[in-house]
Amino acid sequence: MRPAAVRNTTLAMAAEQAGAPLKAMHIELAPLADDQVEIAVEACGICHSDLSMLHNHWGASQYPLVPGHEIVGRITALGSAARGLSVGQRVGLGWVSSSCQHCAQCLGGDQNLCSRNEATIVGRSGGFASHVRCQAMWAIPLPEELDPLAAGPLFCGGLTVFNPLVQFGISPLARVGVIGIGGLGHLAIQFAAKWGCHVTAFSSSADKEAEAKSLGAHDFVSSTDPEVLAALETRFDLILSTVNQELPWHAYLALLAPKGRLHVVGAVLKPLSVGVFDLLPGQKSVSASPVGGPQATRQMLEFCARHGISAQVERFKLSDANAALAHLESGRARYRIVLENDLAA
Amino acid sequence: MRPAAVRNTTLAMAAEQAGAPLKAMHIELAPLADDQVEIAVEACGICHSDLSMLHNHWGASQYPLVPGHEIVGRITALGSAARGLSVGQRVGLGWVSSSCQHCAQCLGGDQNLCSRNEATIVGRSGGFASHVRCQAMWAIPLPEELDPLAAGPLFCGGLTVFNPLVQFGISPLARVGVIGIGGLGHLAIQFAAKWGCHVTAFSSSADKEAEAKSLGAHDFVSSTDPEVLAALETRFDLILSTVNQELPWHAYLALLAPKGRLHVVGAVLKPLSVGVFDLLPGQKSVSASPVGGPQATRQMLEFCARHGISAQVERFKLSDANAALAHLESGRARYRIVLENDLAA
Repeated sequence: MRPAAVRNTTLAMAAEQAGAPLKAMHIELAPLADDQVEIAVEACGICHSDLSMLHNHWGASQYPLVPGHEIVGRITALGSAARGLSVGQRVGLGWVSSSCQHCAQCLGGDQNLCSRNEATIVGRSGGFASHVRCQAMWAIPLPEELDPLAAGPLFCGGLTVFNPLVQFGISPLARVGVIGIGGLGHLAIQFAAKWGCHVTAFSSSADKEAEAKSLGAHDFVSSTDPEVLAALETRFDLILSTVNQELPWHAYLALLAPKGRLHVVGAVLKPLSVGVFDLLPGQKSVSASPVGGPQATRQMLEFCARHGISAQVERFKLSDANAALAHLESGRARYRIVLENDLAA
Repeated sequence: MRPAAVRNTTLAMAAEQAGAPLKAMHIELAPLADDQVEIAVEACGICHSDLSMLHNHWGASQYPLVPGHEIVGRITALGSAARGLSVGQRVGLGWVSSSCQHCAQCLGGDQNLCSRNEATIVGRSGGFASHVRCQAMWAIPLPEELDPLAAGPLFCGGLTVFNPLVQFGISPLARVGVIGIGGLGHLAIQFAAKWGCHVTAFSSSADKEAEAKSLGAHDFVSSTDPEVLAALETRFDLILSTVNQELPWHAYLALLAPKGRLHVVGAVLKPLSVGVFDLLPGQKSVSASPVGGPQATRQMLEFCARHGISAQVERFKLSDANAALAHLESGRARYRIVLENDLAA
């Protein structure tokens, strides 16, 4: 049975202009495309990039803007060319909602790197809504073991830090450092620890030590103490930076073992200053990446189910999204916020 | 038969202080160590790092300084613990003359990244001499197919650009760019072309196009034209920079395909400015490396023998080393200089 998509609007929490509070409104939807599915949103995480888009920090925002790209819900309609999914199935949707499916990246399994990618909240309506749509391949079935009210953050924040482990073939023998113990970092610690690695958490908040260790970190390092950092030189095979600010890159590169990699997933705006002689004698690398593709997402979810990995979330009602956004902006969220959909469809 | 090392001096071309001309003198040698071999030098290439050491640009020079670390010669003596070599065998020796053999890098096959590496011309006498010594594992047998009077440059310049192909598992399907068509670049083009890759040479000297193509480059790009560069965006899987100067890194990073790597082997002193958003959307990397290890050297030599790869060299007599150094400093060398040993032992 493939019900036709009769819906032509979604009830959403939307901002009418940059910085405006969200309010509930009906947003018009284009007809469901052949390769799309429609999802009735059950819950949606909040990511810092939702804030960036709401404030139009990247110049890519269109209003009314419906944020939300850490979505979990059930499929309500399938386009005629949507494959591998069924109505009623529970799925998740993250930052990417469509890719071209015919470029080298799409054909090669790197759909997340497709230059024609459509983002869930850029020029279209996101998950702070009763319904959202995406290309079928980007709706990833949620394993039954995962809590639908906590799983949303895996689809953006989680995938962003899980994917590097896959992409760079990180060995369970590796020593991994995670800089920043927030929404991304608290998941990175869990992933790397269950991956079998030795994990060191770097944080400027000394009060996060106990939590970092409970998440699986073997060591905790106060990142504000240059002497502590210096004592760790040449220790790490991978350092994953999840923070959005400039760091003492020279010092962190010195912490890498030969062949080590400093990988940045935080949206740092100021260019990194990287000395050739920070890299050359030890054959080190600096890199960055966005979210992962559909297959890495499936693998992540299976890994989470097998190892009991989950985001630590605080819950708000979707109708209370403005309070949730204010909580995130205040820096008090530990570690991720999920909005439970309480809007009528 | 293992002849004892009776020699306690080498006749060398040495500089008595920074910037001084070389003159022939006898240099005292420590007793041959158990794990060392002694090599009677037949020929020795000149590398820019010989100039840097002669001028003490790196603050690591000791005088009298005997440069030379692209050495080919025949073994004249073996220490009691030297394995796998025999007197009379023709070998080559490059930048590294010893490694600790007990650290993680040495045990793991990355001896070139050993932090206790001894360099052939740092604190000891190099190859502008009748004889030179090294730890046995760093004396690499020269295949008979290779010309001993041209092979020296493979051991430093060649290895520096060959090793990244091995280290990063570059596929023959890759599109490779080589920046700078000099001593390193002219070998990098040959290696990458015979590796099966598509090769583009980037040079600021338009007159090198014909030579670059004769070496195997499929395309030649005038690197001084921003419009030409812009037309090549997202094309390259690997860009190997062999030049010693600052480049428009942002522009070159844009030339990388998704998952591409900008790899620097030129000793650029000014830090690279690398934007996270130059790397993040396409999951790109920036890296650098020194020379390779003994096994990569063997593989390189076998590859050269199989494919007829050789350095293009200009020859001088070792006794005429000052003229050769002046020729190199003038920038007129095409592409590598080799000194033939005409000193009496």
